[in-house]
Amino acid sequence: MKDEYVHGYDPRENLRLQDQAGTLVELLHSDTAYPAGSSVLEAGCGVGAQTITLARTSPDARFTSVDISEASVVEAGRKVAAAGLTNVQFRQADIFALPFEPASFDHVFVCFVLEHLARPVEALEALKVLLRPGGTITVIEGDHGSAYFHPDSEAARRSIQSLVDLQRMAGGNALLGRELYPLMIEAGFGAVSVSPRMVYVDSSRPDLVDGFTRNTFTAMIEGVRESAIAAGIVEPAVFDRGIRDLYRTAERDGVFCYTFFKAVGKRE
Amino acid sequence: MKDEYVHGYDPRENLRLQDQAGTLVELLHSDTAYPAGSSVLEAGCGVGAQTITLARTSPDARFTSVDISEASVVEAGRKVAAAGLTNVQFRQADIFALPFEPASFDHVFVCFVLEHLARPVEALEALKVLLRPGGTITVIEGDHGSAYFHPDSEAARRSIQSLVDLQRMAGGNALLGRELYPLMIEAGFGAVSVSPRMVYVDSSRPDLVDGFTRNTFTAMIEGVRESAIAAGIVEPAVFDRGIRDLYRTAERDGVFCYTFFKAVGKRE
Repeated sequence: MKDEYVHGYDPRENLRLQDQAGTLVELLHSDTAYPAGSSVLEAGCGVGAQTITLARTSPDARFTSVDISEASVVEAGRKVAAAGLTNVQFRQADIFALPFEPASFDHVFVCFVLEHLARPVEALEALKVLLRPGGTITVIEGDHGSAYFHPDSEAARRSIQSLVDLQRMAGGNALLGRELYPLMIEAGFGAVSVSPRMVYVDSSRPDLVDGFTRNTFTAMIEGVRESAIAAGIVEPAVFDRGIRDLYRTAERDGVFCYTFFKAVGKRE
Repeated sequence: MKDEYVHGYDPRENLRLQDQAGTLVELLHSDTAYPAGSSVLEAGCGVGAQTITLARTSPDARFTSVDISEASVVEAGRKVAAAGLTNVQFRQADIFALPFEPASFDHVFVCFVLEHLARPVEALEALKVLLRPGGTITVIEGDHGSAYFHPDSEAARRSIQSLVDLQRMAGGNALLGRELYPLMIEAGFGAVSVSPRMVYVDSSRPDLVDGFTRNTFTAMIEGVRESAIAAGIVEPAVFDRGIRDLYRTAERDGVFCYTFFKAVGKRE
């Protein structure tokens, strides 16, 4: 699984994940807080982009953050320690074989993980087992098919599609956000509620123009250039034109739209 | 212009516009209210779907509602009278040649109109002239490129595209919503603020499954079947498959997403 992570593990990618987390914290996480004393499993913490927010927002909850990548777990641990946070334990583990007892967590948190898995419903079922009855799961995913922009551009759409195709080839699904409701239902969660979180960017919002359009979304697409060309799914000239057109949407008269989906469900 | 209105003027279409207005009132209009005594121009009132909401929400404002179609104006007048509302005057008029003095309105309201015009910026400029300095304009538009769904379907996307193509052939732009910010700026409005209004529909929201996915959006696409086929822009079998697939998104495990855009600006 590790080798197939579509975004790779290089330092520039880590920087991108930090930019993304900074810009989107309020939109995605402001309504997530866990009670004092509760135990929370963060499944797929990566380099800790969300871990810091979770641990800060719920200082009296106890977090256990796991990731399949040992290097990511080490980096996340370093970052959480540097932030002076002491309520997180880290552990390297596979989401399909987590080393915990059934019903041992009050809450589970999963962000930008299911989109990379070939069997998202099985992952959700495995996580459900770890929840105590009445415990909640929170799942956040993007959906690259939700991206549209002005000026519109066929090349830009094809460069985005090349990431969607790559992720599909690696067993994932970059259009998973829209499917969260049926996936949660299929995994057997109750009281499922999904809310979209739309990022709308025009030039009256310069922080988002830089923080989202340029440094999060377009940088993410740009990051798969070599893989997409090597896989033969896009012509270099088309891809590069698409990237230029995506940056074009960050100009004064440009507009960029993208939607994340946040689902909450309960083990009944 | 009348003959080119892409949705036509038949009674079933009027019903659809009513369904649409009923389901979306809260989402689109709850933050629009005009002060007592203010004079408001509704440009392009159609059959009055929004007029009733406006006049009810701001009972002490005085509305002047115009439309290029005499038949629509008559129908809107009948409906407003039947609702017992007395604060609306109707008049047949062309948005590019409105029979009013400059600076004669405190506010202007335009909903689902610019998408049908070949020169939306000129329309906005013409409306700006009618506003007193400091007066506001409110513009609401959809964007058919914002529609995505589960299960995804190439045929469904092509049936939607056939409405986008038809509207383009008639001089309009069914993807106008995303462009509201730059259009308002180009027309010279100040303090422009655009907010997206996303309609997210899964089976936990049965009112929207019926009221939006089935009876508003899919019915709207279905309504252009004959025109799209006559124009040669889609094969009947593809179009019909697309419509079936759109209705499929209204099933228990389906999801449908669409976004409207609402802009407010000021004549400075």
